[in-house]
Amino acid sequence: MKVSEEILNLKPYSPGKPIEETKREYGLNKVYKLASNENPLGPSPKAVKAMTEAMTSLHRYPDASFYELRQAYAKHFQLSSHEITFGNGSNELIDLLIRVFCAPGESVLTSESAFIAYKVCAQAARVQILETPMKEDLKFDLNTLQKTLKEKQQNQKIRLVFIANPNNPTGTYVSTSELDAFLKFTESLKDILVVIDEAYLEFVRAKDYPSGLEAFKKYKNVAVLKTLSKVYGIAGIRVGALIAQPEIIELIDRVRNPFNVNSLAQAAALATLEDKDYLEQVQNINWSGLDSYYEELEKMDVRYWRSEANFILIDTFRDHKKIFEALLRHGVIVRPAVVRGKSSFIRLSVGLKEENEAAISALNKVLKDIDKIES
Amino acid sequence: MKVSEEILNLKPYSPGKPIEETKREYGLNKVYKLASNENPLGPSPKAVKAMTEAMTSLHRYPDASFYELRQAYAKHFQLSSHEITFGNGSNELIDLLIRVFCAPGESVLTSESAFIAYKVCAQAARVQILETPMKEDLKFDLNTLQKTLKEKQQNQKIRLVFIANPNNPTGTYVSTSELDAFLKFTESLKDILVVIDEAYLEFVRAKDYPSGLEAFKKYKNVAVLKTLSKVYGIAGIRVGALIAQPEIIELIDRVRNPFNVNSLAQAAALATLEDKDYLEQVQNINWSGLDSYYEELEKMDVRYWRSEANFILIDTFRDHKKIFEALLRHGVIVRPAVVRGKSSFIRLSVGLKEENEAAISALNKVLKDIDKIES
Repeated sequence: MKVSEEILNLKPYSPGKPIEETKREYGLNKVYKLASNENPLGPSPKAVKAMTEAMTSLHRYPDASFYELRQAYAKHFQLSSHEITFGNGSNELIDLLIRVFCAPGESVLTSESAFIAYKVCAQAARVQILETPMKEDLKFDLNTLQKTLKEKQQNQKIRLVFIANPNNPTGTYVSTSELDAFLKFTESLKDILVVIDEAYLEFVRAKDYPSGLEAFKKYKNVAVLKTLSKVYGIAGIRVGALIAQPEIIELIDRVRNPFNVNSLAQAAALATLEDKDYLEQVQNINWSGLDSYYEELEKMDVRYWRSEANFILIDTFRDHKKIFEALLRHGVIVRPAVVRGKSSFIRLSVGLKEENEAAISALNKVLKDIDKIES
Repeated sequence: MKVSEEILNLKPYSPGKPIEETKREYGLNKVYKLASNENPLGPSPKAVKAMTEAMTSLHRYPDASFYELRQAYAKHFQLSSHEITFGNGSNELIDLLIRVFCAPGESVLTSESAFIAYKVCAQAARVQILETPMKEDLKFDLNTLQKTLKEKQQNQKIRLVFIANPNNPTGTYVSTSELDAFLKFTESLKDILVVIDEAYLEFVRAKDYPSGLEAFKKYKNVAVLKTLSKVYGIAGIRVGALIAQPEIIELIDRVRNPFNVNSLAQAAALATLEDKDYLEQVQNINWSGLDSYYEELEKMDVRYWRSEANFILIDTFRDHKKIFEALLRHGVIVRPAVVRGKSSFIRLSVGLKEENEAAISALNKVLKDIDKIES
């Protein structure tokens, strides 16, 4: 069958290596997965209860209009119910935004080393992806993004800008004043939607972190992406949310598959939204885990970046493939990352105390072993 | 924001009216939903057990490679694991097939009054949809499809042909000899994939019904779609399967979102596949329900078509909107259908005995009431 160049050249998203697969391949009993920025606590007991109750009705199709979920989210975020819709994970919403607002040949703009799904979804839709360089401190460079828009919006037909805030895999963020200046500029442009992806929002501790929701309320051309896969702990059941102007939401709802968000996902998302105790517990586990990473990594011959998310980016100064494979043999799964063209980075998720300690201990051993072999 | 004509003109899929919504709107306590061809029995106890066990791991992402599910399905259908993949319902697989194999401006061919998702997904992908007339007995006319391919494949760039067998909303099927002749012809064409959608396969009683799997094994350009939403009873959790040549599967896997099939869907699909007792029970409920429909409808001033699925198409000879709304007031949700341009049809799903009897009784009353008013 004939298929387009873009699809033939597409390098698909490569998910974190699964625990079971690692056990099989390496003959291990105990494996720590710190590769996919997953919530280490398990889903909220309220989510489990809600799903258990909903399970006996699974012979029915899901509610295609998200009636209850929409009402609850709108209330929670003080929005109209016409300003929100849901996807099979925020990944599907990224896909839909690109498919709806970019014709083949038009462009999406983001930074290099941004969340990889923007690029993969653009290619799958035969849409161009333009990437501006990151700043040296591994932050999105909004000045360069602005300059690129000025110079190339017309010629390259740029329709969407994706800003991951905080960004994955760097853990860095753009500040309130930086974002505000950028949005002021983009507001004057025609046919540009700026999508702020807040997947890791609830893990942020920085004081000058800008709320995407406030930006959405202030600027007409802003959309906000949220996920239930991180702090909410239900990555396995798939829910993401999109907040945007009603005419944007109406178009996404028109193009999405009617039953894209399954019934148990709707039930779990509803139950977790107001489970404050659970969310606080997850935040605290994450913050103490991050702080212990900082402390341990200070003592090692690596560089790390302070993170506003539930993972940490580490420049190991060594070939990350070797590190990745050596860690696997110790039963620790991490994620190799290429940042600013360099293949020496790994991304390490924050797990439970025991998992974090196992990871740090394994990393210590692996670095020593590699240095021994190579010296 | 600028969007394409196709998306602006897209008439989205309209799902069956939900039970809760009908209760709210009509102030009813008891509502029978026979609108979405859902399995009336509830999910298999084995599926419920498997989901309950998998639920505590929902903080992890789903297995993006469907390792266990793929192995089990391949074994069950005697395929290689490279010949099968899965979607968030077969609806997502229809969407992916169109997006991967048709560029904007190219075409999808099917029959009029075929399953509506082919048309909706094509429009969403800016792809043309060509529909040939149905035969008078409401069957797919494979001769006309063949003629259309001969005359228009080049000019219209037809890439995909969808054959729903049995078809929804007609309940009719194409026979072994008809399908075989059609596939023999299409095998000689270049860059055409024939997709046989077998969503209702397990409900078929006709002796000359052709197996899509056998066709797949015989002809290189055949793909088969399956769903877990019908006889398998898990519409709410979303799983569909695609069987095709490995190079087709590889392309779909490349373009789909990596976590498109959630963890509980994978667990439930695995558990239900071999639950023969459950499947037999569902089939028997359906066949006795259909037979009682035939018996009752014979006595009424309507026309119906014998069905190989879990629903029945009825020409009420009256405005179907009036019938639909009057039935709602009696607490029965059916689906209005337009067939061969006529708006007098409804589609009635087969439910449990009590539900079927309520539907027939309400339909009897509604027909009499409408005739009284109009006479």
